Amino acid sequence: MHANMKSNHHRSRRDFLHTAALASGAAAIGVTSRAGAQNKARPPKLDRKMGIALVGLGYYSTDLLAPALQETENAYLAGIVTGTPAKAEAWMAQYDIPPENVYDYETFDALASNEAIDIVYVVLPNSMHAEYSIRASRAGKHVICEKPMAMNAAECEAMIAAAEEAGRKLSIGYRMQFEPTTQEIIRLGQERALGPIAMITAGAGYRERRADHWKLSRAMGGGAMMDMGVYSLQAARYVTGEEPVSVSAQTFVSRPELFTEVEETATFQLRFPSGAVANLHTSFGVGMNYLNVNALDGWIKVDPFSAYRGIRAMTSQGELSFPVINQQAAQMDEDAYRMATGEDVRVPGEEGLRDMRVVDAIYASARDGGRTIRLTES
Amino acid sequence: MHANMKSNHHRSRRDFLHTAALASGAAAIGVTSRAGAQNKARPPKLDRKMGIALVGLGYYSTDLLAPALQETENAYLAGIVTGTPAKAEAWMAQYDIPPENVYDYETFDALASNEAIDIVYVVLPNSMHAEYSIRASRAGKHVICEKPMAMNAAECEAMIAAAEEAGRKLSIGYRMQFEPTTQEIIRLGQERALGPIAMITAGAGYRERRADHWKLSRAMGGGAMMDMGVYSLQAARYVTGEEPVSVSAQTFVSRPELFTEVEETATFQLRFPSGAVANLHTSFGVGMNYLNVNALDGWIKVDPFSAYRGIRAMTSQGELSFPVINQQAAQMDEDAYRMATGEDVRVPGEEGLRDMRVVDAIYASARDGGRTIRLTES
Repeated sequence: MHANMKSNHHRSRRDFLHTAALASGAAAIGVTSRAGAQNKARPPKLDRKMGIALVGLGYYSTDLLAPALQETENAYLAGIVTGTPAKAEAWMAQYDIPPENVYDYETFDALASNEAIDIVYVVLPNSMHAEYSIRASRAGKHVICEKPMAMNAAECEAMIAAAEEAGRKLSIGYRMQFEPTTQEIIRLGQERALGPIAMITAGAGYRERRADHWKLSRAMGGGAMMDMGVYSLQAARYVTGEEPVSVSAQTFVSRPELFTEVEETATFQLRFPSGAVANLHTSFGVGMNYLNVNALDGWIKVDPFSAYRGIRAMTSQGELSFPVINQQAAQMDEDAYRMATGEDVRVPGEEGLRDMRVVDAIYASARDGGRTIRLTES
Repeated sequence: MHANMKSNHHRSRRDFLHTAALASGAAAIGVTSRAGAQNKARPPKLDRKMGIALVGLGYYSTDLLAPALQETENAYLAGIVTGTPAKAEAWMAQYDIPPENVYDYETFDALASNEAIDIVYVVLPNSMHAEYSIRASRAGKHVICEKPMAMNAAECEAMIAAAEEAGRKLSIGYRMQFEPTTQEIIRLGQERALGPIAMITAGAGYRERRADHWKLSRAMGGGAMMDMGVYSLQAARYVTGEEPVSVSAQTFVSRPELFTEVEETATFQLRFPSGAVANLHTSFGVGMNYLNVNALDGWIKVDPFSAYRGIRAMTSQGELSFPVINQQAAQMDEDAYRMATGEDVRVPGEEGLRDMRVVDAIYASARDGGRTIRLTES
């Protein structure tokens, strides 16, 4: 970029962000978009922190959620559920968790009588999401469940029903919706700040090399689409604020020795009611993480768009610049606050269900050789 | 980007470009890739400039080719073919073209006896490419034909046969293959300088608003895929240096009042023998022009990737930086030189045919609801 281009960009960027701030203020009065106005504010501080029990102590719990729970103001790491006694010992020691708040998958339902646990966070392989979310709801707990929400839309509906019957909240772990740059992208998209959206592409992937990981198992809910693919899908949905009316998809395997059950790569296309088209992909074959939005009056480019940190977004009007936050801490703090006060959570089970309906159609299309499937509102 | 990241990028970029230069030197000795070694050098100067006749005096001839022919060293604007007398008058005056070098579509075949015309450049609507290329070959002229080469692979084969029978060259107007940054991208891709290529995406489009343009006519070879779509397709083929083994495609119309015959938007997927997957798109609905290549050891991002000027390429190793050239002048100079000396042209009819085979499959898949089509070598 030439120096003078840069300077022009900076000028227009300032105007743009000023306009954006005004628009955001306006939205606070009459919210019409899903993005809404309550994005950037941290939730108020509760008098008493909500106790969270993490179910499943794999990488995400260990490296992301437990550290984030050291930063949260409305939630703390109160308990764990694990089938591995050595892990239980280590976590009890590291995080000062009392023995009575440690469960395994046999004793899980006894959570019902433990008043120290307000929220159960399900961080298990995808095939176990529905079962443990439903059991947690039936134990009277609020639930946060990792994405993808479950194996299919039917399981999602059962999870939603169980939470409703229990009178408890169900939140899905879409951390990006708590990330400030992403929230601004959502606002720009849904408010059509750059004009009507015509084309979206997104690619999310990493190179999977572990032959023994559950992500390679069909029965456990593996496959690139179920993993990083959900980010590409979510991005197309949150940028447009619309539900797709047709879906087509193709799956690919480049390393058949590794991918005997699930797709290594998926490409998928969504048509939205407004006329926007999304051409998306995901892969276990290569690292990639980008989102491009092409609208009639401008564009947005985000790379990376779904990383834990360092979301970088350029627009035709300049770079978006927001503070880096701990996404998981922001997510759990707000969830805990809203669960405590009874407010609707930002990403309820219904949102996970909407993604899963599309994922179901993606797999159905791919099984049918890529044939386009029409979706109807349900 | 943080200042220290930028500095790191700059350092590694220098090493990378140094390595690239070495690799390029090596390739000059033993060329194995299509990209080859003869990319950057301008062709030698001929003793006598080759005379080019432009057939069809629309925007591309008027705004790009005729001005470029004022810069060429091996070719000059010797004649024109137009059905519009007023255009003939204006061009004769502006470019000092003698009356005996001015033809219309009735007198076209009389080119055969005009020794001032060495090369006929077909710049007509797509539906007329085959007819006028074949007639030019039969008139004993070398031919440059704009892309897409023709309406389908069968027409391409007839054009190739006609040039062969006449003992004349046939070149397709893929100007990007003469552009230095693109040539480096081709080399990096085909030599796998960033490791095996896993994923490619590209989007090329502009917003078409002209209801009366032939690009909206099926019979005249319109449609987004036939237009900018060829750039996305070419990019996937020249980056991999491979021919796809399967193709799927979907077409979309967001403005049915404008697009009654042809697709406004096309998305298409290619699987290559190496395992690389390309998820590509093109549109008459929105401006976009980007290419992303994700390889196992790095990436390339180009935006724009098919503009007339200002191709900008970033790689995981730093920015690519090459002089801006007049693409059309470089293309016609080299074509003229090789046609004069009898060397193989850089982009022969066979290359246009390879694209067109894929385009045929793209339309066939889209007509069949997106079903994947396997391609066999032919």
